[in-house]
Amino acid sequence: MFLSLASIISLLAIIILTAHGGKVLVFPHDGSHWVNMRVLVEELHSRGHTVTVIRVADSWYISETSPHYNTVTADIAGGGNEDFFRLFVSKSIQIKRSKGSAWARFALDMELKDNFFELHKKVCEVVVYLFENKELMKSFQDAKYDAVLTDPANGGGVMLAHYLGLPLVFNARWTVHGEAHFAIAPSPLSYVPFPPSELTDQMTFFERVKNLVFYTMRMQLYKQIVGPHYSALSSRYFGPDVDYFSLFQAADLWLMRVDFVFEFPRPTMPNIIYMGGFQCKPAKPLPEQLEEFVQSSGEHGVIVMSLGTLIGELPHDLADEIAAAFAKLPQKVIWRYKGDRPATLGNNTLLVDWMPQNDLLGHPHIKLFVSHGGTNGIYEAIYHGVPIVGIPFVFDQADNLSRLRAKGVAKVLDVSELDTETFQNVIQEVLKEPSYRMNMQRLSRLHRDQPMKPLDRALFWIEFVMRNKGAAHLKAEAYRMPWYSYHSVDVVLFLLTIAFLVLSFFAVLVWSCFRLCLKRKVKSD
Amino acid sequence: MFLSLASIISLLAIIILTAHGGKVLVFPHDGSHWVNMRVLVEELHSRGHTVTVIRVADSWYISETSPHYNTVTADIAGGGNEDFFRLFVSKSIQIKRSKGSAWARFALDMELKDNFFELHKKVCEVVVYLFENKELMKSFQDAKYDAVLTDPANGGGVMLAHYLGLPLVFNARWTVHGEAHFAIAPSPLSYVPFPPSELTDQMTFFERVKNLVFYTMRMQLYKQIVGPHYSALSSRYFGPDVDYFSLFQAADLWLMRVDFVFEFPRPTMPNIIYMGGFQCKPAKPLPEQLEEFVQSSGEHGVIVMSLGTLIGELPHDLADEIAAAFAKLPQKVIWRYKGDRPATLGNNTLLVDWMPQNDLLGHPHIKLFVSHGGTNGIYEAIYHGVPIVGIPFVFDQADNLSRLRAKGVAKVLDVSELDTETFQNVIQEVLKEPSYRMNMQRLSRLHRDQPMKPLDRALFWIEFVMRNKGAAHLKAEAYRMPWYSYHSVDVVLFLLTIAFLVLSFFAVLVWSCFRLCLKRKVKSD
Repeated sequence: MFLSLASIISLLAIIILTAHGGKVLVFPHDGSHWVNMRVLVEELHSRGHTVTVIRVADSWYISETSPHYNTVTADIAGGGNEDFFRLFVSKSIQIKRSKGSAWARFALDMELKDNFFELHKKVCEVVVYLFENKELMKSFQDAKYDAVLTDPANGGGVMLAHYLGLPLVFNARWTVHGEAHFAIAPSPLSYVPFPPSELTDQMTFFERVKNLVFYTMRMQLYKQIVGPHYSALSSRYFGPDVDYFSLFQAADLWLMRVDFVFEFPRPTMPNIIYMGGFQCKPAKPLPEQLEEFVQSSGEHGVIVMSLGTLIGELPHDLADEIAAAFAKLPQKVIWRYKGDRPATLGNNTLLVDWMPQNDLLGHPHIKLFVSHGGTNGIYEAIYHGVPIVGIPFVFDQADNLSRLRAKGVAKVLDVSELDTETFQNVIQEVLKEPSYRMNMQRLSRLHRDQPMKPLDRALFWIEFVMRNKGAAHLKAEAYRMPWYSYHSVDVVLFLLTIAFLVLSFFAVLVWSCFRLCLKRKVKSD
Repeated sequence: MFLSLASIISLLAIIILTAHGGKVLVFPHDGSHWVNMRVLVEELHSRGHTVTVIRVADSWYISETSPHYNTVTADIAGGGNEDFFRLFVSKSIQIKRSKGSAWARFALDMELKDNFFELHKKVCEVVVYLFENKELMKSFQDAKYDAVLTDPANGGGVMLAHYLGLPLVFNARWTVHGEAHFAIAPSPLSYVPFPPSELTDQMTFFERVKNLVFYTMRMQLYKQIVGPHYSALSSRYFGPDVDYFSLFQAADLWLMRVDFVFEFPRPTMPNIIYMGGFQCKPAKPLPEQLEEFVQSSGEHGVIVMSLGTLIGELPHDLADEIAAAFAKLPQKVIWRYKGDRPATLGNNTLLVDWMPQNDLLGHPHIKLFVSHGGTNGIYEAIYHGVPIVGIPFVFDQADNLSRLRAKGVAKVLDVSELDTETFQNVIQEVLKEPSYRMNMQRLSRLHRDQPMKPLDRALFWIEFVMRNKGAAHLKAEAYRMPWYSYHSVDVVLFLLTIAFLVLSFFAVLVWSCFRLCLKRKVKSD
């Protein structure tokens, strides 16, 4: 009787959950972006929603089966790119270390550009695969999804939401045209640096020149890389009048992976919800062996180093310099490194294949985080108040770290300058100068001092969109205006014309009067 | 023993409360603005903070003694203006009813302008009174306040916070230069209507022209009314380099009495916190007699009418038209009216001196709210989902109502056109056409569907500023830039100059080559 009651209750719970739970269709961006998206997907699942994730057959990060979501696999190769990115990073390090020519850097940048061009092409192929699979599209329509959740770093989810007429929620930091704010919020280039320009909100005149030039050139580049694919796609399915980028701008909600302890204050919009640091959580206890190692550091504490999943190993000379610097320190070091054991490795340094990074950063003995500047690690360091020594390699890493440097919580070391002495000096400066730790702990306090946890806020707003079939009352539609109307150019020209006509009229009037008077005077003379 | 334990516990509670409670100095804006501010003051008090409110001797709304706050009374007359405003509204109604000349309207507007000029002059006198009272200022400094809370509709609190070097929190919808967003957030005039222009976010070309012209003229007017007083004041106490308006722009936090069910979506800033509707709460049961009257309405329901505290009575002819229209309706009517009993008053209409407006609007029998368009009443109507017939008289009332009209939840009637028939028709349209009620109930649902109650959000952020001594990380400092830098005019001119020089250089080069070739040709010929 007891058992059957329990099963009845659990059955009821499932029914209630299903009744209350909604359906979300997720079009992610493969690679490290999925690490963020998975957090939302798992949380949606834990709240009783059914999540369907679209992936490609050879997906880099997204597994086909999961207890948290169903998958729809597009039978197309090319989600991967892992090999390209690994090779790209390794070439990039080589060029920097050997102080390679500007030409070598440019050639590498062009390789990257070509790769992104291919990436967006593949995404469009996935979209065509879906759209042409009538049975699948009908099943999507029949399933009555409540919303599409996507990362606008690619345009797949945007196209899918428009095709299905579903509300659209972004998990965003980047769109296909650069940093996401720039797509919908006014962004005066005089104090809003365009990433990854490595500028701050306090710019000199020439930095402002750089920001504007950088922005203009980058936008041109993005249009070249992205435009042809998505334009063709949106033209093919939605007609020639639909501008692909306006489909991005029409999203209901922008969940931004941004917090203002990291981002400089800047204009925003009512449908931008900030969830920076949503992946952070209190530290769990460490595995026994690791805890022992950490405890053995005594008063000196521990340094944690990780360069992200892309950079498993480094050139031997570089690894040797790093290891030699560590060996000279009184601290213990935990270094996530998959390469060969450096010859100069000291007894104080523990090499690991993988580490519970969040739990380590939250350990009170950790004094410093050596990081490549990926945002996940940065937000974990902010959350736990651990200052940073940054070694940026590629993408937005240098820009991310430059923000932390501006806030006085990090020192940044260019990989071209990295040798034992400089690395050791930089680490010692951050350890010894108390302002780094104090500033980072202030950021940590500010970051945690919110009325709601970022993840809960994100979920509230996803569910808001699901409940209310969008968020129209928060969404400005100014993007529909032509640029000259948006900036009131037409209105100003109209008013200037009126002013000119009125002035001309009076000028003619005065001139006529003057001539009349003159005539009379001549006559009377 | 039990009693003494209880007293120890309550004593401890008081000590803990005092230890945790902070100190807030409040410089309010007298009149109906105090109704809003009092909500925050009482909530601060209930959370254990000590609140000191600055008032003038003959304050219009702010009583000298209260269980919720201490007062500091400036021995200066002129907080009132009540008489002027009553007279102004009454003249304004007369002019509108008699379809008075444009000249009469202009003359009345000039009276209002002069009154505002005097109002700000008086506020500055209060500030000088405080600043010159060295003992009082020392007591303020010794008291170690955590923040200044003020309504930026006048500049008193802004000056005081700057003088005392305290964090500054605004309870805002208006600054001394018009709608508050316009002071710190980018506000493209192409889709952001400048209140009280009565425009919406969907403007035709000529409406956009009107918006720009209206904005430009109003800003000029505000500068004339406000500029002389606050410029002189800030110059006298803070030196000639301090621009009084930049002191407003430097506020740490803007608690906006705005919600996007009312406001059109528009750019905002990270230190703007929306708390529109923070004064709304669930309805309490009505007094017995009122409940009986409401119940007697049967299926037809009840209409509630209130024209705010400023308009206690109306011209007899107007009151008669309104009463006659009500008399023809099957509904019951509760009308807050202090004038003589209109001759045409029907049996279905109950005149009251005062009404529990929020409790009435929350009663399920209420079908319609006839309102002058004050924001307090509007937010209560939105909260409870009651559609509106608006009769705007002065100030921002017509603009507020035009927003509701644009959202399909209100009909607006100009007082110059109001007679029995038109009033009755408008009421019947809103009662019979279901879209008004459905749209208003949709707004109500959206308004209530927030992760946090607006009042709790406001209090969280006031306490945030108190805890963290400001909100620097949310506050853009772009207002410090000269306008030509903010808008990148200098950068664009610089780049154009460079482009011109480069082009000129090449032009000269080509011209020289051409001439050289020509010369040789001539020579060789």
